[in-house]
Amino acid sequence: MRSPLSKKIIDIQPSGIRKFFDVANEMEDAISLGVGEPDFDTPWRIREEGIFTLEKGKTFYTSNAGLLELRNEICSYLERKIHVSYDPKHETLVTVGGSEAIDIGLRCMLDPGDEVLIPQPSYVSYLPCTIMADGVPVIVPLQHENQFKLTVGDLEKYTTPRTKVLIMPFPNNPTGSIMTREDLEPVAEFVKEHDLYVMSDEIYSELTYGSEHVSIASLPGMRERTIVINGFSKGFAMTGWRLGYCCGPAEIIEQMTKLHQFAIMCAPTNSQYAAVEGLRNCDGEVQEMRRSYNQRRRFLMNEFKRMGLECFEPFGAFYVFPSIKEFGMSSEEFAERLLMEEKVAVVPGTAFGECGEGFLRISYAYSIEDLKEALGRVEKFIQKLRNV
Amino acid sequence: MRSPLSKKIIDIQPSGIRKFFDVANEMEDAISLGVGEPDFDTPWRIREEGIFTLEKGKTFYTSNAGLLELRNEICSYLERKIHVSYDPKHETLVTVGGSEAIDIGLRCMLDPGDEVLIPQPSYVSYLPCTIMADGVPVIVPLQHENQFKLTVGDLEKYTTPRTKVLIMPFPNNPTGSIMTREDLEPVAEFVKEHDLYVMSDEIYSELTYGSEHVSIASLPGMRERTIVINGFSKGFAMTGWRLGYCCGPAEIIEQMTKLHQFAIMCAPTNSQYAAVEGLRNCDGEVQEMRRSYNQRRRFLMNEFKRMGLECFEPFGAFYVFPSIKEFGMSSEEFAERLLMEEKVAVVPGTAFGECGEGFLRISYAYSIEDLKEALGRVEKFIQKLRNV
Repeated sequence: MRSPLSKKIIDIQPSGIRKFFDVANEMEDAISLGVGEPDFDTPWRIREEGIFTLEKGKTFYTSNAGLLELRNEICSYLERKIHVSYDPKHETLVTVGGSEAIDIGLRCMLDPGDEVLIPQPSYVSYLPCTIMADGVPVIVPLQHENQFKLTVGDLEKYTTPRTKVLIMPFPNNPTGSIMTREDLEPVAEFVKEHDLYVMSDEIYSELTYGSEHVSIASLPGMRERTIVINGFSKGFAMTGWRLGYCCGPAEIIEQMTKLHQFAIMCAPTNSQYAAVEGLRNCDGEVQEMRRSYNQRRRFLMNEFKRMGLECFEPFGAFYVFPSIKEFGMSSEEFAERLLMEEKVAVVPGTAFGECGEGFLRISYAYSIEDLKEALGRVEKFIQKLRNV
Repeated sequence: MRSPLSKKIIDIQPSGIRKFFDVANEMEDAISLGVGEPDFDTPWRIREEGIFTLEKGKTFYTSNAGLLELRNEICSYLERKIHVSYDPKHETLVTVGGSEAIDIGLRCMLDPGDEVLIPQPSYVSYLPCTIMADGVPVIVPLQHENQFKLTVGDLEKYTTPRTKVLIMPFPNNPTGSIMTREDLEPVAEFVKEHDLYVMSDEIYSELTYGSEHVSIASLPGMRERTIVINGFSKGFAMTGWRLGYCCGPAEIIEQMTKLHQFAIMCAPTNSQYAAVEGLRNCDGEVQEMRRSYNQRRRFLMNEFKRMGLECFEPFGAFYVFPSIKEFGMSSEEFAERLLMEEKVAVVPGTAFGECGEGFLRISYAYSIEDLKEALGRVEKFIQKLRNV
């Protein structure tokens, strides 16, 4: 019997994120600071709208691109938040989380051999989705000394005549790094100069601390070169609802909608109705969650400072990315020993690319109480290491 | 500025199903017999479980492969229905409808140039998903004189050394055709002889009339060569919940789970909890819907007979596929004139492949009242045609 599998899929490595959590889940008293998911239940107003929808029997397919009502709200929201206008009918597609949009976007844009610039450390899907779409992933290692921001210097090193797409993963998972308007401007100039397209994954856009999120699509000449990807999972604490969207030039969105129709049909109906309520009436709830995350973020930064653990200050998402280079061991080894010896699960930076070596991703989407307990254990662990 | 699009996606034709409905939707008094979706609300027990889930705040990601509780129920259900045992942990993946399973299954199995046998008329996704996965779609035209069943004679004509996968689309959309055990046996022998794999799309398995659905996976030696795809959309009237699943050899399901993790993350959580209730406690509701469909099916068959409209008797799904060859016009022209002149929307057979020429797909997922009114209009239309 021949192998049922394609060569491409066999070569793709599974994600390194979950590895430790299966162990942690079975370990008594373990604390996980690992999962990239809000600890908040979805705001009640949103759940209530989901409940009404089910009570009324609105359980049918929506149009492939998503409820027009939702697309209208998405466009108003983006206008308000990133100051870019999209046409709800031709430039907006509702997807199964941001993940689906990344996948089908790359499938619609890449011919075999087209190169995709993937800044790392970053979310684990960009690389395998590029390979599955016959593209060639080109890793752009971000530098700690630049606070893991993307610079034109980084881009110059890796751009070739085959480069077609640049992934922009900001606010960044796992580093928490953000790009300000000043950071984005030279990148946008570079993109235009080299006739590139941008896939801007803005799933953490609601979670910035101290400054508003800026989308590269809002810079001059960039709207027509950018697919903005966003969704409800992080900012609205709606992970399990599997709802995201993308906006961009009609030419691209039309093709993505075609592929979405064949591969997915439509996003979950109930989630779509609930999200309309989220966009209309939940600014307060979103702000409240943001305030909590920020409080935890500051707590962690203070604790790291007190412990003498090197960590640049992240202004986005809900992750910190401390350096553990002083301990002379790999991220993987550190994470494994921390789990086994002190029962705290974190993710080695290398799960997000080789240039994450020497760092850990610690999520602060956990209660202050859990964070305090966990940080106490981390301190105990690093004191032990330092005293050897 | 260069084109943002890949060659592959541009060449794919959009689905022909929805074309008439946009027109019908804006037309006063139009009746649509076109959409492939149950007219029933999701059974209340299932919706109620969805409501409880939202009330309790179960709004988080599930594991990538889906809730283990749901996978357990799926495996019990398949054991009971098709008499094949699957391991919930390694041979079962919960997907976003059957559609996602078709797409990621092909992406995990096909190397460039691998041929996929696609019997037609059939559902519109197989062909574009094959192309997007770098496979070569090979259409196997099914014959009216065989009641649109697949025969070894059909397969012999189109199998080559490059053939890797056979799609089995039964019970069939759009013809309503089913395959009995006797029909499947020679096909299974052919598959084993030629070392093929089967993707068996059994999404209409709950909707057979007069005999139980038989899965090709249940035939000797076929379990290890078959991915069974099913879901909750049709049998459980859960289209908008976007929930399906696939079961098959661990080697394949493991790779599909990896791709699913990167491209989708997990199926909607709320839908997963609700589906557990569906599998556990809704046999009665499913049976009640089946009884209604069957009543409508018999009504249509009688009407067609009375009108002298040629139609083989379909024993599955909720479609009839009458021939309109006597009128000497194309399916497309017939459907267009029927809509314009009598305000009834149906789908031309050619939307499901060229060999659907001369036929119409009429869905009976509509109330008897609507069907009566629509059939009255169809009769008026064909009398007009016959009297010219």
